[in-house]
Amino acid sequence: MVPEPNNWGRFGPDDQRGTLNLLKPAVVLDALRSATTGEVLSLAMPIRGATSSPAPGTVPHLQGRPLPQHFMSVDGGDYAAGARPIGEGLRVADDALIVTHHGTTTHMDALCHMWSGDELYNGHPAARVRSYGATRCGIEHVGGVVARGVLYDVPGHLGLDHLPAGHRIPAGLLEEIATPRPGDVAVVRTGWPVVWERSRAEYWSGQPGLSAEAGRWLAAQDVAAVASDNAAIGGLNGRGMADESLEDDLHLVLLHRHGIHLIEMLWLEELAAAGRSEFVFVAAPLRIEGGTGSPLTPLAIL
Amino acid sequence: MVPEPNNWGRFGPDDQRGTLNLLKPAVVLDALRSATTGEVLSLAMPIRGATSSPAPGTVPHLQGRPLPQHFMSVDGGDYAAGARPIGEGLRVADDALIVTHHGTTTHMDALCHMWSGDELYNGHPAARVRSYGATRCGIEHVGGVVARGVLYDVPGHLGLDHLPAGHRIPAGLLEEIATPRPGDVAVVRTGWPVVWERSRAEYWSGQPGLSAEAGRWLAAQDVAAVASDNAAIGGLNGRGMADESLEDDLHLVLLHRHGIHLIEMLWLEELAAAGRSEFVFVAAPLRIEGGTGSPLTPLAIL
Amino acid sequence: MVPEPNNWGRFGPDDQRGTLNLLKPAVVLDALRSATTGEVLSLAMPIRGATSSPAPGTVPHLQGRPLPQHFMSVDGGDYAAGARPIGEGLRVADDALIVTHHGTTTHMDALCHMWSGDELYNGHPAARVRSYGATRCGIEHVGGVVARGVLYDVPGHLGLDHLPAGHRIPAGLLEEIATPRPGDVAVVRTGWPVVWERSRAEYWSGQPGLSAEAGRWLAAQDVAAVASDNAAIGGLNGRGMADESLEDDLHLVLLHRHGIHLIEMLWLEELAAAGRSEFVFVAAPLRIEGGTGSPLTPLAIL
Amino acid sequence: MVPEPNNWGRFGPDDQRGTLNLLKPAVVLDALRSATTGEVLSLAMPIRGATSSPAPGTVPHLQGRPLPQHFMSVDGGDYAAGARPIGEGLRVADDALIVTHHGTTTHMDALCHMWSGDELYNGHPAARVRSYGATRCGIEHVGGVVARGVLYDVPGHLGLDHLPAGHRIPAGLLEEIATPRPGDVAVVRTGWPVVWERSRAEYWSGQPGLSAEAGRWLAAQDVAAVASDNAAIGGLNGRGMADESLEDDLHLVLLHRHGIHLIEMLWLEELAAAGRSEFVFVAAPLRIEGGTGSPLTPLAIL
Repeated sequence: MVPEPNNWGRFGPDDQRGTLNLLKPAVVLDALRSATTGEVLSLAMPIRGATSSPAPGTVPHLQGRPLPQHFMSVDGGDYAAGARPIGEGLRVADDALIVTHHGTTTHMDALCHMWSGDELYNGHPAARVRSYGATRCGIEHVGGVVARGVLYDVPGHLGLDHLPAGHRIPAGLLEEIATPRPGDVAVVRTGWPVVWERSRAEYWSGQPGLSAEAGRWLAAQDVAAVASDNAAIGGLNGRGMADESLEDDLHLVLLHRHGIHLIEMLWLEELAAAGRSEFVFVAAPLRIEGGTGSPLTPLAIL
Repeated sequence: MVPEPNNWGRFGPDDQRGTLNLLKPAVVLDALRSATTGEVLSLAMPIRGATSSPAPGTVPHLQGRPLPQHFMSVDGGDYAAGARPIGEGLRVADDALIVTHHGTTTHMDALCHMWSGDELYNGHPAARVRSYGATRCGIEHVGGVVARGVLYDVPGHLGLDHLPAGHRIPAGLLEEIATPRPGDVAVVRTGWPVVWERSRAEYWSGQPGLSAEAGRWLAAQDVAAVASDNAAIGGLNGRGMADESLEDDLHLVLLHRHGIHLIEMLWLEELAAAGRSEFVFVAAPLRIEGGTGSPLTPLAIL
Repeated sequence: MVPEPNNWGRFGPDDQRGTLNLLKPAVVLDALRSATTGEVLSLAMPIRGATSSPAPGTVPHLQGRPLPQHFMSVDGGDYAAGARPIGEGLRVADDALIVTHHGTTTHMDALCHMWSGDELYNGHPAARVRSYGATRCGIEHVGGVVARGVLYDVPGHLGLDHLPAGHRIPAGLLEEIATPRPGDVAVVRTGWPVVWERSRAEYWSGQPGLSAEAGRWLAAQDVAAVASDNAAIGGLNGRGMADESLEDDLHLVLLHRHGIHLIEMLWLEELAAAGRSEFVFVAAPLRIEGGTGSPLTPLAIL
Repeated sequence: MVPEPNNWGRFGPDDQRGTLNLLKPAVVLDALRSATTGEVLSLAMPIRGATSSPAPGTVPHLQGRPLPQHFMSVDGGDYAAGARPIGEGLRVADDALIVTHHGTTTHMDALCHMWSGDELYNGHPAARVRSYGATRCGIEHVGGVVARGVLYDVPGHLGLDHLPAGHRIPAGLLEEIATPRPGDVAVVRTGWPVVWERSRAEYWSGQPGLSAEAGRWLAAQDVAAVASDNAAIGGLNGRGMADESLEDDLHLVLLHRHGIHLIEMLWLEELAAAGRSEFVFVAAPLRIEGGTGSPLTPLAIL
């Protein structure tokens, strides 16, 4: 059993999409009205995978995680070195990407990413998550998220460049900024990525995040998803670990109990600077069957 | 020099985004009006990467291309086998993806993907495309595409399940169906993926596609991008190769000369069945710095 | 329980090395005497990982297996294209390899590679083989194999270029050729790789191999390992599968019951042509902690 | 042109194997006599690729290099979680390895790994080293190395646990210990890996290595290869870089000018403790066509 409250069974006994079910067509259509200028912002961190250079390490990431690797299987250098073109003169560049998205780049967590006990969200057996992928609650069930995004620029609200590492955003602070409507995506800015430029050691000294109370409050508002610019939605302690109790662990509160998808490591600095509190939020993870999540480029349409 | 007509210099001497520059905010805002019901369709083929199973080979792909590989670095099986949870009982599933997108999955081509001579689109030196990535015209310049999508259901228009392998869609046929407005995304259905289910040998016996004439016509309409459900926009011959002259090669006509991004290997069967000719088209490739393209999940908002 | 006879417990209750334990220093020293000329032959198939070329598919492999991928993260093309050297003029080439060795290249199977029931060789719990690797019977326990190799050139013995796909080598045929001494490595030539050059379809139509009887006979001779040039030691049927009963499956007979390591997909054509029946056999798998096996380059010192 | 002395042309205008050509059969046979007890030691560092654990980072490596990744595509956990066996009860564990060997694990450098100017060793065009691999001087030309190994336990000779980071071993010190014969492999112990256990920061503060003078002296003795336990044969400075002039860079002296292959990041602590100065040295890199090197498990047969 899981602690109450939760969304188990709410969307049906076989549901694997959680609160994304709230994004009915009428809700999506209504969300599109949040676009007022049509400016499109990418909310993705860059993926730098040139392994024989320092580039990969220049993007914020959790220490110890395997960084992206990007390889060119044919490129302009080959032709400069004498490779013959295809046919009359066609030249091609081709590449491959290796990515472990959790903790290394902008990504969405699937509902199968974390759980406690023997069951995933909605009682699906955790034993269905195996080497060949998660046959329940994998990222492929997301499809595409199109919703109204509500920006919680918490440091902006507090007059700070970024929240301190130990800060856990209380529900009341969110409520001061805005109350989301069912089906909204709460986009929470901590500003923590700006610390990376200043000091990696500081970036790795912890992370600010949402408090359990705030997570529960967002769940009670029936958000379709929660997005943030930190690497772990509930923050991390001084050793880079999440150390809340099972009851208060935000991944469990949101993913496991409420079926609320999480999107982490967004780049929100431009969005915050735009001064918009509502916009169209789009997230389309790769359709990785059985994936625990996916790297992605979320968009804000202003 | 490149054959005329082309878009070199049109968007500035340093431009690396081509006709995506036509997607000004006002154009995007207008495109959003194409959404009438709010239903969201994913246009992505599944990514099946369980390498110790037949699954990877069950997704349409070009023969000989390296298929996606998806690995679980920790999963439910570990816990079933006795692995201890984290802390009081937190359980995690984590994974990695290896993907060479060209020819294996739904993807967007960057402008650096193909060229002739020593220059990429807009005269950028092809020598800038090196092992560490393409420092010109990489996929990271795309950001997010939000545009009006125009569906060209060519086999539907002809009363066929799918086009034959040798079919090259003439401009006149596209024009019969619709004339796109500047900034639109032409979404071309050949129906070829349905052949896969019937016979792999047949799938690999060639591919229908756009004729050079049709490509030029779309370029003349100033489309922001061209998307299709085949693996090569201009089709493939009986040996699985594109054999047009340099003048008529569609990748060169569209990517190289006109800076028109291409999206290939979409899944369009649901979209065609929806009977909608216009919709909101969204494509947000991974922000791979220096990438020749990216796997992605394009969306149609009906 | 496993069927008798077997080597469980023979080398101690915690043993994870099986008959490699027979390679005591005195045995190794004696094995070195098999070298009479000092000529060194590599017994490895080439690893061709250039993914944007047909090269990977030109090496014999089991259909559907993910082929090796080899990427250059910096190469001569970069410098030809204008990349600056390091310091005064140092130039570097660097690369990465992705390899799934089973069925794709010359490799050694660890004892954890196959089993039946809930226990690996010597009763080690199969539940100890998890996502992070095999904590029992992994390939790292092999260290280095230096032994007397005994060549069983079965087609040569029969006056054939290669054995037919359906051939299962009987014990008697091996015995006609040679009787190995304890600690020897039986190197079995089927000649099947030569079929690859002629026809892939034929290569994939099955594989010759050792009969269960022959496997048991080798086990009774206390061989340190068994090596062969086919992709599955006991052969494969017309559908590319091993279909013996559990009792007769050679991987179970050799790996699981007798703790005899297997090395598959060797290139033995040169060795057979050398006309030597005994030689020094060396196999040093990569020390992959928890690996189910390893690609490797076995050597024959004549 | 390259500075004299060098081995360009010495083994023929097309030679790509350098001083490995000295390992004629008679030399190999003679080298085998160095085995006196038959004990076999592995000289490889462990490869730990469990990416969702701290294990990969526990093996000495150069900072910033992409560490090995090892994934199980099917394992005991799957069966514990309910996966059905194959046929009557066959269970399989299968895996994949991703490895960038330079700077991360025990490996051999190919002659194409480093050069200056536009030519590799023996004048082969550096432009032949492209995205699809090095078509000249790739690691596949090595085959198998079987030679007499001569241990230079430099810290042992000096009564130290390990050499200090700034130490560059002079030729005279090597000469005090032993003079290798043509075709020998010089195995140089710096002891630097033992620093890793004590402090990573210290490990990364530089590396001891051979002086240019010592490299030239070894080249003049016509060694078949040089092996060491540090991550860069000539040592590294306080910033983890090799900063010698082109004339004195050891990779250039050995690989580029003399065609002497290098093997780095060996584990030599056991070998040194064995107190043996001569032994049989075996190195069999993976036959990666066009590889800049290969991970491997070198052996010492005592």
